[in-house]
Amino acid sequence: MSAILEQIKQANDIKKIDPSQYDALAEELREFIIHSVSETGGHLASNLGVVELTMALHLCLDLPKDKIIWDVGHQAYTHKILTGRKEEFAGLRSYGGMSGFPKHRESQCDAFDTGHSSTSISAALGYVRARELTGEDYTVVAVIGDGSLTGGMAYEALNNAARLNTNLIIILNDNKMSISENVGGMSQYLNRIRTNENYVEFKSDVETALRRIPGIGDSVARGVKRSKDSLKQWLIPGGFFGDLGIEYMGPVDGHNMNQLLRVIRTAQKEKQAVIVHVITQKGKGYEPAETRPSEFHGVGKFDVKSGEIAKSPNITYTEAFSKAIQYLGTKDERVVAVSAAMPSGTGLTKFAKRFPGRFFDVGIAEEHAVTFAGGLAAGGLKPYVAIYSSFFQRAYDQIIHDVCIPDLPVTFCIDRAGIVGADGETHQGILDLSFFASIPGMTICAPKNKYELYDMMKFSLNFGHPLAIRYPRGDAYEGEQQHRAPIVCGKSEMLYEGEQVALVAVGSMVETAIQVKDYLAEAGLAATVVNARFIKPLDTDMLDALSEKHNMIVTMEENVLRGGFGEAVSDYYMTKGLPVFVKHVGIPDVFVEHGNVAQLKTSMGMDPWAISAKILSEVLL
Amino acid sequence: MSAILEQIKQANDIKKIDPSQYDALAEELREFIIHSVSETGGHLASNLGVVELTMALHLCLDLPKDKIIWDVGHQAYTHKILTGRKEEFAGLRSYGGMSGFPKHRESQCDAFDTGHSSTSISAALGYVRARELTGEDYTVVAVIGDGSLTGGMAYEALNNAARLNTNLIIILNDNKMSISENVGGMSQYLNRIRTNENYVEFKSDVETALRRIPGIGDSVARGVKRSKDSLKQWLIPGGFFGDLGIEYMGPVDGHNMNQLLRVIRTAQKEKQAVIVHVITQKGKGYEPAETRPSEFHGVGKFDVKSGEIAKSPNITYTEAFSKAIQYLGTKDERVVAVSAAMPSGTGLTKFAKRFPGRFFDVGIAEEHAVTFAGGLAAGGLKPYVAIYSSFFQRAYDQIIHDVCIPDLPVTFCIDRAGIVGADGETHQGILDLSFFASIPGMTICAPKNKYELYDMMKFSLNFGHPLAIRYPRGDAYEGEQQHRAPIVCGKSEMLYEGEQVALVAVGSMVETAIQVKDYLAEAGLAATVVNARFIKPLDTDMLDALSEKHNMIVTMEENVLRGGFGEAVSDYYMTKGLPVFVKHVGIPDVFVEHGNVAQLKTSMGMDPWAISAKILSEVLL
Repeated sequence: MSAILEQIKQANDIKKIDPSQYDALAEELREFIIHSVSETGGHLASNLGVVELTMALHLCLDLPKDKIIWDVGHQAYTHKILTGRKEEFAGLRSYGGMSGFPKHRESQCDAFDTGHSSTSISAALGYVRARELTGEDYTVVAVIGDGSLTGGMAYEALNNAARLNTNLIIILNDNKMSISENVGGMSQYLNRIRTNENYVEFKSDVETALRRIPGIGDSVARGVKRSKDSLKQWLIPGGFFGDLGIEYMGPVDGHNMNQLLRVIRTAQKEKQAVIVHVITQKGKGYEPAETRPSEFHGVGKFDVKSGEIAKSPNITYTEAFSKAIQYLGTKDERVVAVSAAMPSGTGLTKFAKRFPGRFFDVGIAEEHAVTFAGGLAAGGLKPYVAIYSSFFQRAYDQIIHDVCIPDLPVTFCIDRAGIVGADGETHQGILDLSFFASIPGMTICAPKNKYELYDMMKFSLNFGHPLAIRYPRGDAYEGEQQHRAPIVCGKSEMLYEGEQVALVAVGSMVETAIQVKDYLAEAGLAATVVNARFIKPLDTDMLDALSEKHNMIVTMEENVLRGGFGEAVSDYYMTKGLPVFVKHVGIPDVFVEHGNVAQLKTSMGMDPWAISAKILSEVLL
Repeated sequence: MSAILEQIKQANDIKKIDPSQYDALAEELREFIIHSVSETGGHLASNLGVVELTMALHLCLDLPKDKIIWDVGHQAYTHKILTGRKEEFAGLRSYGGMSGFPKHRESQCDAFDTGHSSTSISAALGYVRARELTGEDYTVVAVIGDGSLTGGMAYEALNNAARLNTNLIIILNDNKMSISENVGGMSQYLNRIRTNENYVEFKSDVETALRRIPGIGDSVARGVKRSKDSLKQWLIPGGFFGDLGIEYMGPVDGHNMNQLLRVIRTAQKEKQAVIVHVITQKGKGYEPAETRPSEFHGVGKFDVKSGEIAKSPNITYTEAFSKAIQYLGTKDERVVAVSAAMPSGTGLTKFAKRFPGRFFDVGIAEEHAVTFAGGLAAGGLKPYVAIYSSFFQRAYDQIIHDVCIPDLPVTFCIDRAGIVGADGETHQGILDLSFFASIPGMTICAPKNKYELYDMMKFSLNFGHPLAIRYPRGDAYEGEQQHRAPIVCGKSEMLYEGEQVALVAVGSMVETAIQVKDYLAEAGLAATVVNARFIKPLDTDMLDALSEKHNMIVTMEENVLRGGFGEAVSDYYMTKGLPVFVKHVGIPDVFVEHGNVAQLKTSMGMDPWAISAKILSEVLL
């Protein structure tokens, strides 16, 4: 079944395959990826698109000596298979198993770890400069999607790769898609190149024509010479890159091995930075993924035959947010929503359909998203910026500089906050409480359940200042419906009044706190449970009151402890000199790997059993 | 002397001036700015470059209805003068006086606050979308320098401004400079446009020629039609912007009022985004600034006649860093340095001269700078990234994602950490301890004096992991030379052993702590002074030892308290249940305005007198 693939045990084994078998190998790779991902979940459409491209790179390069840097890294499955990791796919993205992204510690063939977008050219340029200075000799290739070109740092890197006098290959893997349809001027520009078969023909026509004209031809030639540019640069596709000082090659068909091998080998000979424009199809070779590439970008288990994707029957926080923002949209026409290339992932698709003029997908451009929202707010609107926690890290300065310093009413909707699971280290949303809280004047809240997310969204509408609402990935908690006190800025919510031990929990950890309370009750301890609601400002009245009736305060949050909620609580009690003991439940000073959320929490002592046991041992001491 | 200027008392008064007097007005404006800045310090060269451009904008626009967004904002002096703030220049950048940057709270004519680079197009696009949705009618202009175009978020904004079907004017103020000489492919591209007088002539020649050719002309015409582009777009300057879907106009002479007025009025009629390429000279009209624009970018007091700039006779931390990095450069050829458009400001000019192949100025591109450094490190080098504290905020995600997750040996040299003074809110380096400390595994240290900066730099050389060294703006402390214990990771340094009260100070605050100790001694209290050295990891052994002999621990840091050093100390004691009281000296939860550093510290109770008084009052209680 995988007769050819089985001959490939490690890097460079692909070179032993007879060229006549390349197409069959590509088919086997696709077959393997489709079946594997259908069982484990993972990134499908992006990986199916680059099967031939990866094969071609592996045929032209010598790994691990040569370096391939996969932008974002959600397209590295074929690369992993071809470098001896086929057997690891059974444990893909699971706890203790193989990462879904390139990891240098997993294989020397993974030259640079990725996960976020638009970093590959920068890292590749670093390798190129290091190659020069260390006197080594290897090829460096960045593989970057057209979606990633909407991120500004890719352009910062291109600007620096200009007029390079040594080789750097940038493969532009153009599939017209970000996770959703790509946006913006660059995308339209690439589309014009893609769809224009006449470019090449046209170019030679014009050149010939110009050279032929007596008199006028001469003046053109002089003009060209003086401008220090070749006429070619203006008239062939890719002039944009040429203007920046980067050689352009293409477009070539990314599913045609001959074209790919030829263009890569040509690019390797250049003594400069080269963009190789490769046209691929996302989801190639699996019809459901070809027709629904966005759904099959990152996917859970699915049925290979029907293309049906397993879905949780429960409502997620993202879906609750989706309803809430639509409601706000009907209530106030100044409500507008901004997404950074994830309208579907952040739950904004329906808002976008209902209010098309009030929805902005800016591409993978979190920095722009936030400052743009600042401009929208300055112009009198009420912008909601919905971005995943780990991607908000990209906009830290803009949140400070363009929203908080001028105190503009922008609401940051922090999706995927906390442990996200299978995507691992780069995608965990475990820093947002710390970096948002560091910003002077920032207000941060987190709902305990889906109802409170609605309530906090309503609260945000007339808040009038920068506000962050953070909520986790996955199913929304539906418990504790009976507790629905109005949202008041900086005020927490008392859920259960007990004694001795108070559990003060942030957002997603309220559910855990209630489980802990129940376990403790079984052990005869009636713990208090407080829903913090606001991470900043702290509810100092509540903290004061708790200190009177409890000697142990346990803070609970899905965030690193450093700079998080618990530390602020400790600090409040310590500097006020109140006689309590504070213990924290939260993420220690480590990056959290991939795995299922429950397993990961258990590994860090964040499950209700471990927490209860720890509290009891402390109380009994 | 300022006869014309005196007629301008508020916005739009310039429209009453007779056009024949424009040149004289420009001269008066320059005269005023030069003399004013010579007495207060401030941004000079950038402001002298845009006198005519600002006049032209004010003549074409109706302020505050129309919106001008000044990128970075260090070129808004003429704008401030023309909007009624001339008298405020005596207090420019001083405590309680006028800001050196646009501030909406200072004037309705300042449409959007700026300070950092490359944000203006994003904010302007926000205003444009708000204008559409609110049904208002005003002109929106972003004024952005060619230096700011090296920042990726400007490109994210351009990508989103493409194919806009409403007016947005982007003035590209091209002076070939960032603070230093501009770098990269875009800069070279603009230079080609600037220097090529043949563009316009050439364009019409080619067009005419093409249309004339029988047969071949037809095929070209067909090609053009099919490509959906006009031939013009390929053949006139600015094709780069045209490719992105943004109309280009120019280049025009930025010191020629007629050209400026004509092009702005033409641009106002467009129903799309327009780049107006304006060529200006930085420092225009003041010979010392024309010839030394980098020195006269941001400048202290200077002598107008001689052009001599007042300089502190003392060595600054930046100079100490400059020596240290050169020393490391000679010791280890793998040492490389990266700057984001500030080789001079960060003290890297000499390193760049001595090791030209090992120095990289990447432009105003902090994100790229950090990921590029990650690539350099992955390639076997030892990169040092020297950036100001407030600009490192731009690279938070890259520090996490491209350096700390893969645990690469990059050293972050955080210059201008702490209160920087006159540049105000946007430039204060008061968050770095918090956002660096939030990152798992990060190590952060801060030297007490210039000798310790050398020692920490030496320590960094073989540290082998991500490391941050933070040091303040201005004169380096030279005291406490007698204390020079070797640097050990995570270990603090005992300076003076006392009792009862322990002052644990970070970096710049060690000097203050010693003054406090002396005041307390006068009051009969022998306080302990500890130089924290490492903010992360905490020296828990020292904290344990201090808790035995002291009941009050006073932490001192030039950083916001939230997520800073003191909070971590509180938390350590609180969660360990050690019986001490902790008090903090640091920056409260506010943005710190402009002013001189000593005044600002006093305003926040951070001067030695206030600290001593507070400690005594607590101890006596």
